[in-house]
Amino acid sequence: MAEIRTVNPEKLIVFSTKALMKMGVTEEDAKITARILVAADLRGIDSHGVAHLDPFYIKGLKTGRINAKPQIKMFSESPSTAIMDGDKGLGFVVGYKAMTEAIRRAQEVGSGFISVRNSTHYGAGAYYAMMALDHNMIGISLTQGGKGIVAPGSRGKGIGLNVISVAVPAKEEVPFVLDMATGVVAGGKLEIAKRLNRLIPEGWAVDEEGNPATEVDKATGGILPLGGTPQLGSYKGFGLTVLVDIFCSVLSGGLSSPEKEIGPNAPGPNHFFGAIRINGFMPIEEFKLGMDNMIKAHHNLPKAPGIDNIYLAGEVEQIIEKERHHGIPLHPDIIISLQKLAKELNIKYDL
Amino acid sequence: MAEIRTVNPEKLIVFSTKALMKMGVTEEDAKITARILVAADLRGIDSHGVAHLDPFYIKGLKTGRINAKPQIKMFSESPSTAIMDGDKGLGFVVGYKAMTEAIRRAQEVGSGFISVRNSTHYGAGAYYAMMALDHNMIGISLTQGGKGIVAPGSRGKGIGLNVISVAVPAKEEVPFVLDMATGVVAGGKLEIAKRLNRLIPEGWAVDEEGNPATEVDKATGGILPLGGTPQLGSYKGFGLTVLVDIFCSVLSGGLSSPEKEIGPNAPGPNHFFGAIRINGFMPIEEFKLGMDNMIKAHHNLPKAPGIDNIYLAGEVEQIIEKERHHGIPLHPDIIISLQKLAKELNIKYDL
Repeated sequence: MAEIRTVNPEKLIVFSTKALMKMGVTEEDAKITARILVAADLRGIDSHGVAHLDPFYIKGLKTGRINAKPQIKMFSESPSTAIMDGDKGLGFVVGYKAMTEAIRRAQEVGSGFISVRNSTHYGAGAYYAMMALDHNMIGISLTQGGKGIVAPGSRGKGIGLNVISVAVPAKEEVPFVLDMATGVVAGGKLEIAKRLNRLIPEGWAVDEEGNPATEVDKATGGILPLGGTPQLGSYKGFGLTVLVDIFCSVLSGGLSSPEKEIGPNAPGPNHFFGAIRINGFMPIEEFKLGMDNMIKAHHNLPKAPGIDNIYLAGEVEQIIEKERHHGIPLHPDIIISLQKLAKELNIKYDL
Repeated sequence: MAEIRTVNPEKLIVFSTKALMKMGVTEEDAKITARILVAADLRGIDSHGVAHLDPFYIKGLKTGRINAKPQIKMFSESPSTAIMDGDKGLGFVVGYKAMTEAIRRAQEVGSGFISVRNSTHYGAGAYYAMMALDHNMIGISLTQGGKGIVAPGSRGKGIGLNVISVAVPAKEEVPFVLDMATGVVAGGKLEIAKRLNRLIPEGWAVDEEGNPATEVDKATGGILPLGGTPQLGSYKGFGLTVLVDIFCSVLSGGLSSPEKEIGPNAPGPNHFFGAIRINGFMPIEEFKLGMDNMIKAHHNLPKAPGIDNIYLAGEVEQIIEKERHHGIPLHPDIIISLQKLAKELNIKYDL
């Protein structure tokens, strides 16, 4: 059996960039994509990192599902809002450009929002929200996921495994980075369980008939919305799922999740990006101090038996990022997939 | 035993207005408050309607916890953003003014956001979000709730029972109105269970030691965040709770929930309001048609056995509102409370 191998993140970025360029992506766009992919691995979001390079992105470029040289267009009707058409470009590139535009508008009038149609999978949403941090803004990134959730009262995967990401800067504490799918659990977690050959907890997903499933192979009937059952608030998870689709799809003129077909010809996801300039409300240093106080107050809550620390959104990922700064541990399956890719694309495998 | 009595909504507004004016509230502010209170009853949000008139608002005005004649101030640093200080005025009045300001700014630059500190309880959040509908905007209303949620890993009610409300207009379908507390269940639902002498489901709340509780009187250790257990995503409900506190409290310069004391001297809630002008993205008629298509696609999903209809957020409330248009059924306890109030304030009871 192969073992987990630790790989230098910079080398992983260079490798991924080369692979994408071989598929006709420009150097600038390939670099953007590689950086965002590896950023997910760095933060421990293994389900959204280089594990997907070959199966999602290289394959998508090969089949033409992803457009290597998109003509991204923007339509704007107000100083703070616009629609973007991604022309089926790499979601990373589309997302990076849309978020950059949201930040530019927030710089001008206090807030900026871009609703994006006709994109493709953009990896982990937190990256785009976190782009706002260096600009002393609150960043928002929403995306449609694939059809993976069972709507309460319904049968089968009818609605999107949508994602909400929000990032907020702090002073000395770790920035708050919420990055959550609106299902009980992210689809990537099922992939990981499958890769590690583990059972999944009851309440994550159902089989084709709608019964609870604990084996990943049987859990093909859809993931439950956050809340799980109606009594425990699954209509809230459902409501959040629809909300994300409104911002991403209806507002951009794209198709909402239940309107989309499933399968290889399904249109790619729509997104929504937002930036809100904090000093449009109050001096940034005052705000950051307020964030630190708020975060510390949560850390200082009385602990339940056996609990040492209370973690806020983004803190665990920051700890992992520090650990992985000099090396990202990759599962042997992923190493093999990258080696195969190198051979196929005739690039040097030097990870 | 007294029975449920049906009361004319217009009369209820007039009665509530008179009661508030007796406490020194101006006619304009009393009317705003009464209208929003009764709107909750009309939509079936019995936990946030006139049931609270005496115990929350009249009592609050009596004790000085609520300021009958607030000097509401606004500080703005960008075209789309501002802070408001509510001067402990009735939350309804503060919220109405802040949302009106958010809409005005969205009219000008496409979006408007007001973060509000130093307010008091503002009733059901959906009202403020729904104010945006007539302006063809998406409306957002967030509020801190009282300290009522147990943070994952913690003991006791450490964080706020915060609320997210978002309203989006449609064409012929019912507007989408999400109105959800970030706990498994709204605090008001526990009040209703207590009033009706019913047990609550396991997973809603815990006792003082953190054990699951099904009797309302024992469920004093806090409501669980949406998700319930960490495995089923309670960190997501926790994350949403903190997010609301950031927008309401940190951004306004108020105190976040865990920083607040509990008890009669606790500072009132902070809020956040937002309006996003839809034709800043696309023509409004095109958007509304897109909403109708999205809503119909959800309605047309395959149904689970025994299910006839799939309801989106806001649809059930709209059905109730149609039924209650000519009469709101009030629980005998509430009738008695209003009769007592009439006597106490020396106003005519003519409901």
